[in-house]
Amino acid sequence: MKAVNIGILGLGTVGKGTVEVLRDNAEEIGRRLGRAVNIFMVSTRDEAKARAVCPPQTLVTSDPFALVRHPDTDIVVELYGGTGIAKDLVFEAVRHGKHIVTANKKLLAEHGGELFALAEKHNVMVQFEAAVAGGIPIIKALREGLAANKIRSIAGIINGTSNFILSEMREKGSTFADVLAEAQRLGYAEADPTFDIEGHDAGHKITIMSALAFGTPVNFSACYLEGISKLDSRDIRYAEELGYRIKLLGITRRSAKGIELRVHPTLLPESRLLANVNGVMNAVRVHADMVGETLYYGAGAGARPTASAVVADIIDTSRLIAADSGHRVPHLAFQPAQVQAQTMLPMDEITSSYYLRVQADDKPGVLGQIASLLAAQNVSIEALIQKGVRDGHSAEIVILTHSTVEKQIKAAIEAIESLDNVREKVVMIRMESLHD
Amino acid sequence: MKAVNIGILGLGTVGKGTVEVLRDNAEEIGRRLGRAVNIFMVSTRDEAKARAVCPPQTLVTSDPFALVRHPDTDIVVELYGGTGIAKDLVFEAVRHGKHIVTANKKLLAEHGGELFALAEKHNVMVQFEAAVAGGIPIIKALREGLAANKIRSIAGIINGTSNFILSEMREKGSTFADVLAEAQRLGYAEADPTFDIEGHDAGHKITIMSALAFGTPVNFSACYLEGISKLDSRDIRYAEELGYRIKLLGITRRSAKGIELRVHPTLLPESRLLANVNGVMNAVRVHADMVGETLYYGAGAGARPTASAVVADIIDTSRLIAADSGHRVPHLAFQPAQVQAQTMLPMDEITSSYYLRVQADDKPGVLGQIASLLAAQNVSIEALIQKGVRDGHSAEIVILTHSTVEKQIKAAIEAIESLDNVREKVVMIRMESLHD
Repeated sequence: MKAVNIGILGLGTVGKGTVEVLRDNAEEIGRRLGRAVNIFMVSTRDEAKARAVCPPQTLVTSDPFALVRHPDTDIVVELYGGTGIAKDLVFEAVRHGKHIVTANKKLLAEHGGELFALAEKHNVMVQFEAAVAGGIPIIKALREGLAANKIRSIAGIINGTSNFILSEMREKGSTFADVLAEAQRLGYAEADPTFDIEGHDAGHKITIMSALAFGTPVNFSACYLEGISKLDSRDIRYAEELGYRIKLLGITRRSAKGIELRVHPTLLPESRLLANVNGVMNAVRVHADMVGETLYYGAGAGARPTASAVVADIIDTSRLIAADSGHRVPHLAFQPAQVQAQTMLPMDEITSSYYLRVQADDKPGVLGQIASLLAAQNVSIEALIQKGVRDGHSAEIVILTHSTVEKQIKAAIEAIESLDNVREKVVMIRMESLHD
Repeated sequence: MKAVNIGILGLGTVGKGTVEVLRDNAEEIGRRLGRAVNIFMVSTRDEAKARAVCPPQTLVTSDPFALVRHPDTDIVVELYGGTGIAKDLVFEAVRHGKHIVTANKKLLAEHGGELFALAEKHNVMVQFEAAVAGGIPIIKALREGLAANKIRSIAGIINGTSNFILSEMREKGSTFADVLAEAQRLGYAEADPTFDIEGHDAGHKITIMSALAFGTPVNFSACYLEGISKLDSRDIRYAEELGYRIKLLGITRRSAKGIELRVHPTLLPESRLLANVNGVMNAVRVHADMVGETLYYGAGAGARPTASAVVADIIDTSRLIAADSGHRVPHLAFQPAQVQAQTMLPMDEITSSYYLRVQADDKPGVLGQIASLLAAQNVSIEALIQKGVRDGHSAEIVILTHSTVEKQIKAAIEAIESLDNVREKVVMIRMESLHD
């Protein structure tokens, strides 16, 4: 099938990330989509940069209007942001029958109604997964995954900068000003951080989600905004003493009286998952009538996570362009001809760390014997704790190992179980750090 | 647009739930989909039950083959489960050109390859969101939301029965046998719980996710299964002392040597979100190259959560049937003509509970004055704590209120700030229990 031609407006952080994702995962994306995604054209003032990251066939222009009007562009990927030229370009692209993929939350929250009406008229899609919560596929969940539900409320940590600042204030007891300065050093906060810390960014995102949830027009002007800049670290401490964490939440809720739409610092019981989302991470909790509570967690910003959402939208939109049935989402995610058997690793070959509990006679030298048998299989020990004597003469030894190959831990266990002083089977439970 | 005709095989828990979701949310679903979903036919041996839950026009048959062969059925919803008659019916339906929506994880994990090949041949879709993690839209996330990524690993709590048992063992220090008996009393475990507690159910689910993640055939026979029935509560306790929780995880991972596919009890660092998923809830963590870590949480079983996924698949499949562009997923989730402005609640009218911090002179009677002013606005106090004297003469009073209307808390704050003994602005932060 013919490649789909995309034109990218802007090669900033997300634009460059999008080009890299399309390049590095071209094969994987082709296996899923069944056609290639061709970076047909990019618009940037920095031609050298474009040449450095784009494939050789890409046309580079400094005239973004030439890109949106080009007859061979199928999809326009708008990554300029804001409501200035980006708005003019997106509207012009729609008028030229181009499908749009955008990460521009401000454009959608402030002009979504007008834009979607124009898109209906010109029979094109405007896709915006990347506009809310970065790489988390929350727009898809709200529009499609939860389509059987009446959505009751949404509460989200949807500004990574603010969440990083609040997490640091809590962990280190620092003041807002000190943590903001640190965040700026680390690149987590802009030189002018107003947009993030005063709730505007979260407000744009919760406004978009509110419309999707309740079938209402996007209405940013109705969103109450209160940021975190006036938060006193004392209140974070007191809240914690009472069993709460303070998070900047975007909240929207349907009640009998009307729709709530607001962004503000919020105390959450520390037992809730949302209260345990730390650092720059985002999470959105949706409460819906049939499914109950669901929660979606991941990176809310960054070049590659945001590009992951942009490219998912490009793939979705490419499926719309070709009406043949081979262009449906394939059953197993990949095109049937691309489903390939691969080596399935037998358990002996997996790599894991392990928890072991050994029941041994409480005699001198036993610990040393066990440690030696582990060492003989190249199993290194992270922790070894004697849990005390159970019945006067036998002891429980609990061991956490570093990562090793399963056949080696099994060999070590077999050797340990054959010791005279070990009378029961060794308990072995695998461990995962979830850091990969 | 013409209604889509569905035929439902089986009116058990999920079948009845599906009928109820389609009935109770018919208007909401119509607003999203742009056409009605008609329960054209159901197959059950209990006609009286069918008559009690289905709309009057529904045809009721005791011959499921009549349903799958009926020329007016567009989509067959298979909710019998298992690989006996359900398999024959699904294959026969596909041969008759019907799209399939199913919750049958066993059928997919054990015969998915054959089924999907037949579906390709007959140009129909087999949709199975409900087969994995109930109401969580994880299949959609893996197939579409993360389509730009190379997926590296998946780790999921995907059996609610096992997770309930492990959560209870940890919280109460009870034995496996005692908690299993309790789970059976509560209806969280079957009379014969083998399928859940020995990892078969989780194995089916991780097998399906593994195929979607890596583009490999479904291959349940390659899945290592180890359940929780031999877990000793001592090991849960020792793991906790070391900072870990034990969860039954389904794990699949792509490594240089091959693909890992396994289900077993696993120690997780207690700081990880997955370690904090308790009770019957499910969660799936996906690690992918571009987006990094994402996590999806929700109810993994139950009539309505599972039906939420079944109906989402019915909606998706209905869009495939009609090729007109009005049948795309609409921009704002609802059909353009169904996007309706609703009353936006001003902040004064929202309901919340509140954290207040009052800086007051440390004089007798101040606490009483504050409490009276809150009471005068019908604000009831959940906790009131004097945080101690800061500078010898002024005290910090921290108050948590019960739920109240915002204008009343504001009036109370205004009154408190006008007290002679209160010299600073009152700090007010909203609270959310996330229990709605």
